[in-house]
Amino acid sequence: MTKQQQGQLVIIGGAEDKKGECKILRRFFKLAGGRNAHIVVLSTASSDPHAGIQYQRIFNDFGAEQVQVFAIQNREEAASTQFCDSLKDSTGIFFTGGDQLRITGILGGSVLGGELLKSFERGAVIAGTSAGASVMSETMLVGGLDDATPSKEIIRMAPGLGLIKDVIVDQHFAQRGRIGRLLTVVAHNPYILGIGIDEDTAIVIDGTEEFEVIGSGTVTVLDGRQVTHSNVSESSPDQPLALINVKVHILPSEYRFNLYERFVTMPAK
Amino acid sequence: MTKQQQGQLVIIGGAEDKKGECKILRRFFKLAGGRNAHIVVLSTASSDPHAGIQYQRIFNDFGAEQVQVFAIQNREEAASTQFCDSLKDSTGIFFTGGDQLRITGILGGSVLGGELLKSFERGAVIAGTSAGASVMSETMLVGGLDDATPSKEIIRMAPGLGLIKDVIVDQHFAQRGRIGRLLTVVAHNPYILGIGIDEDTAIVIDGTEEFEVIGSGTVTVLDGRQVTHSNVSESSPDQPLALINVKVHILPSEYRFNLYERFVTMPAK
Repeated sequence: MTKQQQGQLVIIGGAEDKKGECKILRRFFKLAGGRNAHIVVLSTASSDPHAGIQYQRIFNDFGAEQVQVFAIQNREEAASTQFCDSLKDSTGIFFTGGDQLRITGILGGSVLGGELLKSFERGAVIAGTSAGASVMSETMLVGGLDDATPSKEIIRMAPGLGLIKDVIVDQHFAQRGRIGRLLTVVAHNPYILGIGIDEDTAIVIDGTEEFEVIGSGTVTVLDGRQVTHSNVSESSPDQPLALINVKVHILPSEYRFNLYERFVTMPAK
Repeated sequence: MTKQQQGQLVIIGGAEDKKGECKILRRFFKLAGGRNAHIVVLSTASSDPHAGIQYQRIFNDFGAEQVQVFAIQNREEAASTQFCDSLKDSTGIFFTGGDQLRITGILGGSVLGGELLKSFERGAVIAGTSAGASVMSETMLVGGLDDATPSKEIIRMAPGLGLIKDVIVDQHFAQRGRIGRLLTVVAHNPYILGIGIDEDTAIVIDGTEEFEVIGSGTVTVLDGRQVTHSNVSESSPDQPLALINVKVHILPSEYRFNLYERFVTMPAK
């Protein structure tokens, strides 16, 4: 990862707890300012205009001062300036699940998309679950086969929001058997760190070079920098991948990973 | 892996091609002596007494001189000496799929089980698919959850046939999302090499320290010797696993892996 000033991100593997302790959603709420938070729920990923409502209720229940849902459904709405003023005051922006291509296809290059990047730069915390997690990186996975032997044809990638550099995030990771597709991503460019996030699990980046794991599952880190051989450049799309010497870490709650130096920090005893 | 004289093994990840080129089954047939082969199909893993018949037909079609099916269904049959004489002459023994616990529970410690080990020692090639693959190692996986976050409660292990040392084999690997359970095995004892074999894929061990990959999928090798930390000894059964620094190789057809020195050899160009 290129050394840089990090923003605040909460990247969630989908299916986060919404009825119990709500550890992940509460962490976002707290980072966004707690009771003083001004939260915008962006449900663009979903074609259901009501997809953001459940999150609005939850953040209201936590006691957030102001929670708005932007159910932006097309580029016309994303071009309007009416939503921008609200974003300017926001302390937290939450992307729901759905289809990551809707997020970039509708917001990418729009007035609202620009305001979103400005909000991140001025320090608003950005969270996303499922599709909202995938979209965080510069290049994102937009689709792929689950439980599949790694090969080039099992994945599709596209440009994401670029809020986190030099990584690709996959979600519902263990639950949908997605290591094959994330290994395929790493084979395409071993410089890129693969981060596979289980359901009800998240990584939190809080202005430092590290992420912290929270939630009930694990985060799988695929580090390909020491890969000594792969057949990705000469193989046909359906040919099984060869990939030698990938370093893997399985990290549960409270473990930290330094994105720049690529090392793990264990929880304090 | 302890350095030793290796026998001949064909360990198959299940669902091998039975109608097309039959690459894997033909390799076994060839190793067993081709037209001069005397093959015994052992369908003990299955409670269906006819489970071996399809393999008998296939090996007969290949032109094998003699193919017998032993549908041993209980320890009484395994204690009888009637099957032993046939095993003594066999050049290849093929374990069908089913339940690996039936293989060890019925054959383990029996007269027939003893003869099986002798056959391996005198050079007969032993093949096994699915359950018949799992059973090859000293300790085997007998069950576990697919598509699951690694934790101790997602796997169960038991003593296997011990034909291959210092490894644990898992099958239907990519197709059933089993890396979580194989990582959990490696966490239990990082000395043990995890070998995950996809469907219609096999490793062939032909008297050397190496295995060769054949078939249409990949073999995933998990090497835990450089693991710097895990929480396996202190975690509760349902607690997500922490495991840092596992080395992973993805190996398609024609790639070789040295089990003793743990390095990959690429196919000759």
